[in-house]
Amino acid sequence: MRWNGWGDPERAAPLPEPVLAILRDGLGVRTRGTASVQVDTLVAPPTRLSDAAVDALRGVVGDDYLLVDDASRVAHTRGKSTTDLLRMRDGDLGDAPDAVVVPGSHDEVVELLTVAGEHGIAVVPFGGGTSVVGGLAPDARGRAALAVDLRRLDRVIDVDVESRLATLEAGLRGPAAERLLAEHGLSVGHFPQSFEFASVGGFAATRSSGQASSGYGRFDQAVVGLRVATPAGTWELGGIEATAAGPDLRQVVLGSEGAFGIVTAVTVKVHPTPAERRYEGWRFDTFAAGCLALRRLAQDGPRPTVLRLSDEAETAVGLARGGEVGTAGSGSGGCLLIVGFEGADAVVRREAAAAVLTDSGGQNLGPGPGEDWLVGRFHGPYLRDSLLDAGALCETLETAATWSALPAAYQRVREALTTSLGEQGTPPLVLCHVSHTYASSASLYFTVVSAQTDEPVVQWQRAKAAATDAMVDAGATITHHHAVGRDHQPWLAQEIGELGVRVLRAIKAEVDQDNICNPGVLIPSAPA
Amino acid sequence: MRWNGWGDPERAAPLPEPVLAILRDGLGVRTRGTASVQVDTLVAPPTRLSDAAVDALRGVVGDDYLLVDDASRVAHTRGKSTTDLLRMRDGDLGDAPDAVVVPGSHDEVVELLTVAGEHGIAVVPFGGGTSVVGGLAPDARGRAALAVDLRRLDRVIDVDVESRLATLEAGLRGPAAERLLAEHGLSVGHFPQSFEFASVGGFAATRSSGQASSGYGRFDQAVVGLRVATPAGTWELGGIEATAAGPDLRQVVLGSEGAFGIVTAVTVKVHPTPAERRYEGWRFDTFAAGCLALRRLAQDGPRPTVLRLSDEAETAVGLARGGEVGTAGSGSGGCLLIVGFEGADAVVRREAAAAVLTDSGGQNLGPGPGEDWLVGRFHGPYLRDSLLDAGALCETLETAATWSALPAAYQRVREALTTSLGEQGTPPLVLCHVSHTYASSASLYFTVVSAQTDEPVVQWQRAKAAATDAMVDAGATITHHHAVGRDHQPWLAQEIGELGVRVLRAIKAEVDQDNICNPGVLIPSAPA
Repeated sequence: MRWNGWGDPERAAPLPEPVLAILRDGLGVRTRGTASVQVDTLVAPPTRLSDAAVDALRGVVGDDYLLVDDASRVAHTRGKSTTDLLRMRDGDLGDAPDAVVVPGSHDEVVELLTVAGEHGIAVVPFGGGTSVVGGLAPDARGRAALAVDLRRLDRVIDVDVESRLATLEAGLRGPAAERLLAEHGLSVGHFPQSFEFASVGGFAATRSSGQASSGYGRFDQAVVGLRVATPAGTWELGGIEATAAGPDLRQVVLGSEGAFGIVTAVTVKVHPTPAERRYEGWRFDTFAAGCLALRRLAQDGPRPTVLRLSDEAETAVGLARGGEVGTAGSGSGGCLLIVGFEGADAVVRREAAAAVLTDSGGQNLGPGPGEDWLVGRFHGPYLRDSLLDAGALCETLETAATWSALPAAYQRVREALTTSLGEQGTPPLVLCHVSHTYASSASLYFTVVSAQTDEPVVQWQRAKAAATDAMVDAGATITHHHAVGRDHQPWLAQEIGELGVRVLRAIKAEVDQDNICNPGVLIPSAPA
Repeated sequence: MRWNGWGDPERAAPLPEPVLAILRDGLGVRTRGTASVQVDTLVAPPTRLSDAAVDALRGVVGDDYLLVDDASRVAHTRGKSTTDLLRMRDGDLGDAPDAVVVPGSHDEVVELLTVAGEHGIAVVPFGGGTSVVGGLAPDARGRAALAVDLRRLDRVIDVDVESRLATLEAGLRGPAAERLLAEHGLSVGHFPQSFEFASVGGFAATRSSGQASSGYGRFDQAVVGLRVATPAGTWELGGIEATAAGPDLRQVVLGSEGAFGIVTAVTVKVHPTPAERRYEGWRFDTFAAGCLALRRLAQDGPRPTVLRLSDEAETAVGLARGGEVGTAGSGSGGCLLIVGFEGADAVVRREAAAAVLTDSGGQNLGPGPGEDWLVGRFHGPYLRDSLLDAGALCETLETAATWSALPAAYQRVREALTTSLGEQGTPPLVLCHVSHTYASSASLYFTVVSAQTDEPVVQWQRAKAAATDAMVDAGATITHHHAVGRDHQPWLAQEIGELGVRVLRAIKAEVDQDNICNPGVLIPSAPA
């Protein structure tokens, strides 16, 4: 993973000239000292860890697994939001951890939390490092901060084929988890855009939804058990999918982003590796017509495994086909829908869904767009690096609303982004797709591109605030699958009530008395 | 509802002579002063409410809705477990509330909690009064206790047809909710055995699962929003089915049994009234063979709306057909499976499922047993009253386990019941069925009948403790759908960890500082 961008540098995605022309001529994008600083010029701030703390941490993980070199600290600084990348490209290491530890077991994580409590060190769980909401930049309040890199927790602990359950360690990245489960003929089927780098523990801690949520459900629906290392000790939860033994505390850990401790293992529902796979494209005249078709499938079935409907703007720039901006869209205006079916009954379900889509005014475009999307499905974040290189601002945000509130939410968030960035002198291109559907609701995922102002971090923060206010006004959620982190925190009370925030604080005070667990993430720190 | 039994006295279910003969000759059941005391002989204990408290409560609900007469207090004493009924039949009013209030709005419930806090009164939410785990018998510790009867909160607040959501007040009973939704062509599809009397708020507060959970999901899966009156004020949660805005606090309220406040309204997913309905019976040679067929349907579909497999013993006594003990079972030994399909595609799904069932060794018995079951589906609790009248002990308990752990859980719970009651000189008849299936797990529902000892409450408590220990040992949950109440509380820490219990206490301390909300239910009270 690049320290100041996404993924494998070998797989960078340079922008074709027609796109550069759109940026220049359509959006007024100019390069303005936007190139990144070089990593070898970076010097991390002096460590705030005492010698005694360093010794104690080494005592837990051994000499080889406490990393204090600049490169390790830089590689564990912040996540992958655009404001994170802008700060990194500027050489701002203000949020760098003071050290990185790489524990080898659950017990070592528990011991690390004990040491951290004794020495007053803030602890940040680090899976894939792909948070886009500030989840990796704690409010340490002058204390030292420790990144706990979970990459050595990479085992499949147990597979129960009969019950279709697998217990996975939290540091397993998406591809490794799928590869190891495939040896048993099984799959989790969880494919967020960050799949190639994100970790199983991160999927749980952030309520990741995954591109195949229509078919395999969200990750929070897949989890039936959790093992959590907390400052108050080990917490084992669940194992039985459905129970009435009081409040479901698994759902308290899911989405907690390290604020209550560190998830070290999850037991998840798995399914047989799909025997068949059918992906294809459909065209709808309008976004509204496409949404109606999605609702029919979500409510009355058959439910496809993947459903992704781009609006007119996203379809026009070609992003609908999986991140290859500048290639042709459907070629005929309208909105592109990608529909995928996986499983032994893929062909049968595809046929029944095709009847619904046709009846809803859809035109079948054949498998081409579907196959394109599959190839490019993890490609989006690479594009952003190229856009930043070209001097553009590019970021995504997302929400969900009930079907009845969806059209208004779509309009209001678009307007908020357009107005805010327009008022800042950088009118944007705003693209949108629906990629997660439920019986009662659906998600909206926006991609925003504009020129940068001289202060792009502030520029985006203003636009994002306007968009999030619009979500709240429209009765939509402040985040469907990106979690809260520090970026969404100012709106959390509007989502769960002041009483909800008080409940979260009370839970945290119980399991994390010294406030060492990712302080300031999810739950606002008390005023300094 | 009978004060000392179940339901409508007009619908009592006297036992046929062959059943009485089995009780006498097979189980050694003798009548032994087991007839109930008469209600007109009962005098409730003196009220512990001060005059000031009574005035303040009247100030909230008005004179007509504060009830202090003996009949009202008796009617709100305890729930409907067998030990509850045995105590009532003995005239034991030790758990009678000091008064009953019948608020007319959410705001009145909030005000009642304020008054209760000021006067140190324990508050018990009363929906249908059908708890079977001691959820209505708070540990008031000498304080006055108030039953808050929610029957006037009986409106449908909102119906969003497009999003298939309905917002229902908590006091709506099952039949009224279905009748009002049917006016919109909609249904919740939630049919627990207590359906005729239980309330929407109770479904939420206890994580009720419902006989049609295979098709429509559990009630906790249907809820997308909650309005809760707490001592700390109103708490509104949710509205969007899927969100990543931190821990899902709806799941903290679901299953909380009044310990954090009183649910006054829920927003639930609804679906069109099913156009088609097909119910039928199948026969399997053994319970194990039937379980394998259930697992195939639960994991690979098509999922029926209702799936209920009785073991050999339950099939033999005829209870498999819906509570008509003493009628013929399948007539040929083996195990009876009831399979139901509802919805526009009922016929298609039925056909596909029939292929799986046939392939799994099932023999189709036609619609007869299915229709019988539908007629008798809410009938079970009436039988218990007749059995108690005859001098028998009769109670049910339930659990769930992963498919791989299910056979051992079944054996161990049966053995625990048989051994415990055998050692007490009353060898039981133990019947079982599976009625809730998931991809990873399934429920087990046991019915136990034996002779009574001289102390039937203690007799059953011993048997139940042995059975619950066996569940824990087998890795099964302590309750799949009956909730925790006071009866399952001693095992809660084994289910959610000591840390889980601490978290529940911390939440309660935050929202219910004076410990007035159903004290001692769900969460153990601190030592006196």
